[in-house]
Amino acid sequence: MKPLINLDLGEISYCIGKEALESSEKYLTSRSKRYILVDENTEKYCLPVFKTKLPGLPYHGVIRIPSGEENKNIDRCIYIWKKLTEMEADRDSLLINLGGGVISDIGGFVAATYKRGMAFINVPTTLLGQIDAAIGGKTGIDFLNYKNQVGLFTDPLAVIIDTVFLDTLDDIFWQSGYAELLKYGLIMDRDLWQMLSGKKYRKIKEWDPLIMKAAKDKVDIVRYDTQEKGIRKILNFGHTIGHSIETFYLNQGKPITHGQAVAAGMICESFLSSQLAELECHPQGEICDTIDLNFDRIELDEKDIPELLKLMKQDKKVRAGKFKFSLLRRLGKAIHDVEVDDELVIKALEFYIHQKKCS
Amino acid sequence: MKPLINLDLGEISYCIGKEALESSEKYLTSRSKRYILVDENTEKYCLPVFKTKLPGLPYHGVIRIPSGEENKNIDRCIYIWKKLTEMEADRDSLLINLGGGVISDIGGFVAATYKRGMAFINVPTTLLGQIDAAIGGKTGIDFLNYKNQVGLFTDPLAVIIDTVFLDTLDDIFWQSGYAELLKYGLIMDRDLWQMLSGKKYRKIKEWDPLIMKAAKDKVDIVRYDTQEKGIRKILNFGHTIGHSIETFYLNQGKPITHGQAVAAGMICESFLSSQLAELECHPQGEICDTIDLNFDRIELDEKDIPELLKLMKQDKKVRAGKFKFSLLRRLGKAIHDVEVDDELVIKALEFYIHQKKCS
Repeated sequence: MKPLINLDLGEISYCIGKEALESSEKYLTSRSKRYILVDENTEKYCLPVFKTKLPGLPYHGVIRIPSGEENKNIDRCIYIWKKLTEMEADRDSLLINLGGGVISDIGGFVAATYKRGMAFINVPTTLLGQIDAAIGGKTGIDFLNYKNQVGLFTDPLAVIIDTVFLDTLDDIFWQSGYAELLKYGLIMDRDLWQMLSGKKYRKIKEWDPLIMKAAKDKVDIVRYDTQEKGIRKILNFGHTIGHSIETFYLNQGKPITHGQAVAAGMICESFLSSQLAELECHPQGEICDTIDLNFDRIELDEKDIPELLKLMKQDKKVRAGKFKFSLLRRLGKAIHDVEVDDELVIKALEFYIHQKKCS
Repeated sequence: MKPLINLDLGEISYCIGKEALESSEKYLTSRSKRYILVDENTEKYCLPVFKTKLPGLPYHGVIRIPSGEENKNIDRCIYIWKKLTEMEADRDSLLINLGGGVISDIGGFVAATYKRGMAFINVPTTLLGQIDAAIGGKTGIDFLNYKNQVGLFTDPLAVIIDTVFLDTLDDIFWQSGYAELLKYGLIMDRDLWQMLSGKKYRKIKEWDPLIMKAAKDKVDIVRYDTQEKGIRKILNFGHTIGHSIETFYLNQGKPITHGQAVAAGMICESFLSSQLAELECHPQGEICDTIDLNFDRIELDEKDIPELLKLMKQDKKVRAGKFKFSLLRRLGKAIHDVEVDDELVIKALEFYIHQKKCS
């Protein structure tokens, strides 16, 4: 694979790989004023790298919000809208979202709604951001304990995925992103799955080819289904149950990472796949093994199940009260819109809780 | 003119005239659940009419916010998002915005951002709503004393303009809408202008043909330029200065109507037109006379001018710090993106303040 992928898809451009930033100056200079959104971590570790790589780029302000999913809320939006107003950003300005999924989710939403829309560019700095959150135009904030309850589908001008930022990443973020990497393998990219199956993320030395493959997979899906009307739904594999677990823990004041939640969700939904989508016993076992090798099981109790179901019912993917899951037919192939009864969802959670292997 | 205009433009449909509601049931029943957004006035006067005209239509909740531009704010958005969540609205639900410009502006914004987008239909109940605010996909809220500082371009599923609601309208709302009616005449519809020139709105008996003409004018503009990149900008005639006056008074706790502000703005911007766009003295006088016949001059002082300019600089239409106005070439013909210096804007305000006639 070449060290850099350049995709110019008209409305939106992607640049992925080493030195992606240096190759993207034309997007960053395409508007009259530039503002950079950071959190305290990306301000400290990534902003200096950004400035070093693009020494000549003038910008008009840095806006900082605190890191963490718990800050992806309406109060932080209000703060960013206020800062943009005070710094006299206009419709011809650009917001550069320098950070992980929280930064691109909230930054994209704020930019798209500021004065009915200013341009933004995502410069993801985490593994999760680089292969998932920054790509595909989903923006939004959590609201009333529901994830992404308020938001928009709206595309950035460009997504600049420079792997240099990963040098600064803590172990927990590598783990979190790894769940999504596994997901691409499972739903659409058997080659990728075979590169990952049975591996521990801590042992991986060559990340760049994996990231470029996964990011490209995501681009390939979302470019054909921006609004998640069809094929894009397969990206939700592991996320219907995963989101409910993530929210459940967040509500208890004990946040877990997105990857930990999705890893749990993928075990549950692989079980559903074996019941409803003909996924065979052997690959289901292989999936659980690879996930268990990288993620400890989340502590859940049978008495938590009703609350998890309630949270799932608030999921955006629920229509007219019915669960629709994306499930695996086999390794590297997912299907979407499989209707699942409450009872089977309960069984999937029980399967997870009792550490059962494929039966 | 026929008693009803039906325009099906693919993504969006318009139904304008008497009995528009009865003709639009198919749009209102196209989603699984329906919620109606009202204020205390439309709940009292319009909701019963709505129910009487569509007796068989089931709906799943009414959400009420207080009337008035001062309630077009983020706190009310939060309230509506919360209510929708509590009433379990999903992406397949429909929000019906039953009210004037405030209701369609805030309701459209909230719907478009709820779970990354639920459908909405505008059922405007004021003259201003019917010929302007409900058409064209501009949604938003005021923020930090700036009008529509946060918002989106987003289209409703349909706009149902039933003139029956105007029977309930107070005089002040007739006057407010009349300013926009005059505007369509001035910028693009000389026939309409000739129907209005020299008339007092209180003396008009046949409103339906005027409303259908103006609403159709607006549809004709916005369908070709949704995002206000070009021709749509002519709709801003009177609004650059008008908005600043409206905000100025709102900030002082003495709100004036949108129409009063736009009427003042049109006098100022007709003056600019005479200076920069070859508008001749005679029509400029005719414009001022017709406006003065229907609107008292707003009290403004020369010492207020710096504050008005500051507010104008925050206008979304300002790019790179330069004023760009839409001005009149002649009656029924506007041009856009005319650059205007601060000094001439000051002169236009002085012209307004000192009640000068065309010189």
